[in-house]
Amino acid sequence: MSKAMKKIQVTIGLFILSTVLAVSNLAATEHSDPLPSWQEGASKQAIINFVNDVTKRNSPNFVEKNARIATFDNDGTLWAEQPIYAQLMFAIERIYTLAPQYPQWQTQQPFAKLLKGDVKGALSHNENAVNDIVMAANTGMTDEVYTHIVQQWFAKAKNPSTQQLYSNMVYQPMLELIAYLQHNAFKTYIVSGGGIQFIRAWSEQVYAIPPEQVIGSTMKRSYQHQGTKKIIMREAEMDFYNNKNNKVIAINSHIGRRPIAAFGNSDGDMQMLNYVTDGKGARLGMIIHHTDAKREWAYDRTSQIGHLSEGLDKAKEKNWQIVDMKNEWKTIYPVIPK
Amino acid sequence: MSKAMKKIQVTIGLFILSTVLAVSNLAATEHSDPLPSWQEGASKQAIINFVNDVTKRNSPNFVEKNARIATFDNDGTLWAEQPIYAQLMFAIERIYTLAPQYPQWQTQQPFAKLLKGDVKGALSHNENAVNDIVMAANTGMTDEVYTHIVQQWFAKAKNPSTQQLYSNMVYQPMLELIAYLQHNAFKTYIVSGGGIQFIRAWSEQVYAIPPEQVIGSTMKRSYQHQGTKKIIMREAEMDFYNNKNNKVIAINSHIGRRPIAAFGNSDGDMQMLNYVTDGKGARLGMIIHHTDAKREWAYDRTSQIGHLSEGLDKAKEKNWQIVDMKNEWKTIYPVIPK
Repeated sequence: MSKAMKKIQVTIGLFILSTVLAVSNLAATEHSDPLPSWQEGASKQAIINFVNDVTKRNSPNFVEKNARIATFDNDGTLWAEQPIYAQLMFAIERIYTLAPQYPQWQTQQPFAKLLKGDVKGALSHNENAVNDIVMAANTGMTDEVYTHIVQQWFAKAKNPSTQQLYSNMVYQPMLELIAYLQHNAFKTYIVSGGGIQFIRAWSEQVYAIPPEQVIGSTMKRSYQHQGTKKIIMREAEMDFYNNKNNKVIAINSHIGRRPIAAFGNSDGDMQMLNYVTDGKGARLGMIIHHTDAKREWAYDRTSQIGHLSEGLDKAKEKNWQIVDMKNEWKTIYPVIPK
Repeated sequence: MSKAMKKIQVTIGLFILSTVLAVSNLAATEHSDPLPSWQEGASKQAIINFVNDVTKRNSPNFVEKNARIATFDNDGTLWAEQPIYAQLMFAIERIYTLAPQYPQWQTQQPFAKLLKGDVKGALSHNENAVNDIVMAANTGMTDEVYTHIVQQWFAKAKNPSTQQLYSNMVYQPMLELIAYLQHNAFKTYIVSGGGIQFIRAWSEQVYAIPPEQVIGSTMKRSYQHQGTKKIIMREAEMDFYNNKNNKVIAINSHIGRRPIAAFGNSDGDMQMLNYVTDGKGARLGMIIHHTDAKREWAYDRTSQIGHLSEGLDKAKEKNWQIVDMKNEWKTIYPVIPK
């Protein structure tokens, strides 16, 4: 055999070997646990059964790839919402940053209380207090400037209780769930009561969910002249509050077909779960129940943030799966390499 | 050489051969004309230059796949809008269908004129006439029922001038353009003044654009009880009219980042073109100019449908490419196999 022939044989051999390895590697991936942070139990099994049911070609509940749509609430479902919503923390911190430009805030409520450090007093000053703070912090700039401000804040801001970066306060089991669904050709959407552009500023980096798959509350915006350019200006007026029935309307506006899986944690999500699980065929409705006072927070019926009562009452009748965080999640937060 | 060895050699040989064929086949696809219905000329060259510019890794204007977003107006850009918008024809025909259930329409304008066959008189009866007809035809049913009604109509309805199915009135060059962009990892969106659910009912079948990538005008909807179920009801009130500046706002709401290419045909699209081409890096703004009275319709500055004046005046300054249909499109409509 000539040297050239030997070289070709070796090349072919290596080629076949690498192909075999690639195929067996794929098989290993297919069979490895897609949800390692989930305890073996009812919730994990419900997820896996559902995904198998809608993705196996021979299943009576098979769903074509383009109709595999899953919707997730954000606060309390994908990341921690205690002791105060992240976007409200953003707003408060932005008021502190902006204060030197607005000397009138020193005497104007609710800003005056806030600037004296009385957060609770400021937020409960009157029924408009939260709105006034949110508007002052989230509007009056262009859409591009706003996105930049949020990203700068997000890179450094920390949860006031845990002193962890917000990107470390997402739930590892939910990151695995999103990735598992995406791997099975699902389009994963966030459907949040939070601001749509606030979440979009970091959703791709944190959840691998692109801006166009984020649905949230919106401020009025105008497309207007600024010098020789035209810009999108964020106006200080609410346009659409994405909660309860409005989550269903927003899904209809943005997606235009009924999702087949929905995940939430508070009563504001139950209309979405109802809409999704009311559809024909295999459906998955899942409620994240905050039962872990030690590793996270335990709250439901009496909490103002993430109030959950209707969901607990109706879950059985509606066949919604309740995730008991304390017992069903091995880990809560991701271990981020430093 | 043993029989087994020979078999292995033949198998390997066939495997390599098929790999080589697959690769060369791919190369052939890469080099074949992606836009066969476009004449060689300025517009075709502008498209190909732009796509190369944003997709070649070594290009200074390279754009990551997730940011390759293109937006298309629908009426007059992707399909014919003369002699009357398709959705208005749908509305008129639906009034005829519904008439037996509404005897009061026999004397109530603008319906009475319509039912006597005076379409022009009905539409111009007063300033609310078009709105009254559109509302009566497009609302008052659930979202699912509406989609079904539109699909049934679409399967059989014909353009009143050409007597062709509406699916045969789409522009073949634009179908090729959409496919070419999709092949290059673009997300292609429709951004239309037409009704969002009206277009979604057939956009996937006709354009290979899924419902979630269709943006349009919306009616108010409510999520309400109907017996033991809850349904999305289409209310007889305009929610959002997606035209001019609103197209930019809607892109901001639905997509959340600036597209890099936009295609329109009337002054209602110029704000969208402006927004898209105002961005940094390579941008493509393109105006379909209806110049072909013989194969289609010729109209621009004096037409009520598809009025185009600002676009023609500003194109040069804005570096927007004007497509001269008569001279730049080899074919207009697709040849649909019967």
